[in-house]
Amino acid sequence: MKNVYLDNNSTTPVLPEVRDAMLPFLGENFGNPSCLHDWGEAPREALETAREQVGDLISAPPEEIIFTGSGTESNNFAVKGIAWANQKKGKHIVVSAVEHFSVLNSVKSLEKMGFTYTVVPVDNNAVIDPEKVRQAIREDTILVSVMHANSEVGSIEPIKEIAKLTKEKGLIFHTDAVATAGVIPVDVKELGVDALSLAGNMFYGPKGAAALWLRKGIRIMPLLDGGVQEGGRRAGTENVAGIVGLGKAAELAKAQMLQRNEYLTKLRNRLIKELPAKIDHVVVTGHPQNRLPGHASFCVEFIEGESMLMMLSMKGVAVTSGSACTSRSLLASHVLLAMGLSHEIAQGSLLFGLGLDNKEEDIDYVLTELPPIVERLRQMSPLYSKYLKSKGG
Amino acid sequence: MKNVYLDNNSTTPVLPEVRDAMLPFLGENFGNPSCLHDWGEAPREALETAREQVGDLISAPPEEIIFTGSGTESNNFAVKGIAWANQKKGKHIVVSAVEHFSVLNSVKSLEKMGFTYTVVPVDNNAVIDPEKVRQAIREDTILVSVMHANSEVGSIEPIKEIAKLTKEKGLIFHTDAVATAGVIPVDVKELGVDALSLAGNMFYGPKGAAALWLRKGIRIMPLLDGGVQEGGRRAGTENVAGIVGLGKAAELAKAQMLQRNEYLTKLRNRLIKELPAKIDHVVVTGHPQNRLPGHASFCVEFIEGESMLMMLSMKGVAVTSGSACTSRSLLASHVLLAMGLSHEIAQGSLLFGLGLDNKEEDIDYVLTELPPIVERLRQMSPLYSKYLKSKGG
Repeated sequence: MKNVYLDNNSTTPVLPEVRDAMLPFLGENFGNPSCLHDWGEAPREALETAREQVGDLISAPPEEIIFTGSGTESNNFAVKGIAWANQKKGKHIVVSAVEHFSVLNSVKSLEKMGFTYTVVPVDNNAVIDPEKVRQAIREDTILVSVMHANSEVGSIEPIKEIAKLTKEKGLIFHTDAVATAGVIPVDVKELGVDALSLAGNMFYGPKGAAALWLRKGIRIMPLLDGGVQEGGRRAGTENVAGIVGLGKAAELAKAQMLQRNEYLTKLRNRLIKELPAKIDHVVVTGHPQNRLPGHASFCVEFIEGESMLMMLSMKGVAVTSGSACTSRSLLASHVLLAMGLSHEIAQGSLLFGLGLDNKEEDIDYVLTELPPIVERLRQMSPLYSKYLKSKGG
Repeated sequence: MKNVYLDNNSTTPVLPEVRDAMLPFLGENFGNPSCLHDWGEAPREALETAREQVGDLISAPPEEIIFTGSGTESNNFAVKGIAWANQKKGKHIVVSAVEHFSVLNSVKSLEKMGFTYTVVPVDNNAVIDPEKVRQAIREDTILVSVMHANSEVGSIEPIKEIAKLTKEKGLIFHTDAVATAGVIPVDVKELGVDALSLAGNMFYGPKGAAALWLRKGIRIMPLLDGGVQEGGRRAGTENVAGIVGLGKAAELAKAQMLQRNEYLTKLRNRLIKELPAKIDHVVVTGHPQNRLPGHASFCVEFIEGESMLMMLSMKGVAVTSGSACTSRSLLASHVLLAMGLSHEIAQGSLLFGLGLDNKEEDIDYVLTELPPIVERLRQMSPLYSKYLKSKGG
């Protein structure tokens, strides 16, 4: 049986060069970077190298990079930390309807602490209209958090335009760039944002190492209090090996980005073009052009994404039906619903995350294996019989 | 030159068996454990194995283990999360004066959010009197947080006695066991606590993987909101490789604990006995007997710990002068001050954390190299000249 991993939106493999860079820090360079003796030196220098590599990836000064343990932590830190530190100016936050749950549930937690928030809707492609952000901003708004791209439907958001707005109004703007940093060009100056979350396991780095970039001068309250690590903004002994891997992955992502994306876009375009040609009643979700290079997402009508996922898995193919963080929650995706899709159609969600290991023949394989799976599932689908009857009758 | 690492209180090396267990999860088993397809299976099973291993270490059911990214995160999560979730019952917290900064600074952050706290003093050995905890408890107290052992002076605290008290009063009791779990026997049932923090890099596991044990039924509010990982209590893609390492380290710690401690206690006792015999004006800090097995701590009068540390480092010896998290803050240790030592004496703090790699000859080396270093530093010390004058005159 073939092994075709097409779930790079959930996590990417760790590149061998990344793993090799990490190994000394699980070996002889095991020291604690906070220690003043010689054993602290190599780990301390490695952290600073990684800080430069991550800064380089997003055109940010290294001293503005704060390492964290996950994209989720970066998002929690940004949203809660900025809200707490700036609450004297106001207690209102603006987010979009398609944010990751680490942002949406953070504002819900803040609500319990006396904050309020407004959710900005999206269009059918999951794209946010900056004008709607403007309408959501109030006198007491302090923070806007809108993601750079949506990992479920791949659409890229108009961050620059929103940043112009927030700058005009003197608000702090955070963007969740977990789906984009290390994947497409991200330049914090060009975007005009004030804070940006990224995670290494989205670009061939290890899980457990991520970062928040925070523009100098932006006030934040730590989520993790304690020692003086990360300039006192994120306490706790650093995951040195993980951070070294994140740095190496950032360096490689920057150097190879153009060629990676040319390759992935070609494979992605084949899927987006050929899958709907081979299967009836398939909707491409997300923006048709302005989307992540390796990202192809669909809704297959009349059946459930999870059943397709399971049957593809039996053929050796890994895909997902929603974001990894929600795959066990069994609810229809809030992203697809926000785009105006019905519950029924949203249930048929299927996401492909193409990666560097994929070949043309992987796409051939999916295009061959998926249609009979869909056909079989539809034969068992009450919704499909109903549709056929309505059509026939 | 020799290489003598005597700073295992700051962090331990990663055991080769631990690293070997981690490697597949930085290789072919890179999948996201939340994913339903085959790539999620091995990582998911590995997390559950690690959960059992960590549970076993502290005699807790695996389902009560929540993985985190550091001991600091576990402490922040416990203190803030329990306080937030139980604030309807009251807003007062009791901590000891010798807690780690991740506990002390957490209660300070909570104070900004309307909570109050009382700090219980310690005796000359840094030991807490349970009676003083009783006196600190108020009508509105909800949480008591007292560490199991202090990593700066090695003293073990009377947790069982304090737990009897908190149970009597219906309070939640958290203990920071970062210095003890995986080091000395820790049994959550025997201790009688409700929540317990531990960290893998204190017992030959990797940095970046730690845990909070939380007794079933204790309410906690997540620090990291987002997906449904860790039962919805700690969102974010799991650091699978790190957690696997933590689990393996827990298993080895449990199996080898007796023999490890017999060995370490013997080396430790030599240092505690022979160092003060070789150097005048040396105070052993912490409880003379009831202390961590590999832990020897001193204050060397009239000189600064940091100078000794630097000169020992030049001889290839790694020690520390305070906890790793504070080594760059240049303040006298809050632990030593709470024990009643003067600022002057506290400045001369020197901590030895013995580990499995140490040999008798390492102790010989320190006992030979340290006295001339102390002598040289004292010759340059104004405090020492003053002392000599006062004695001579």
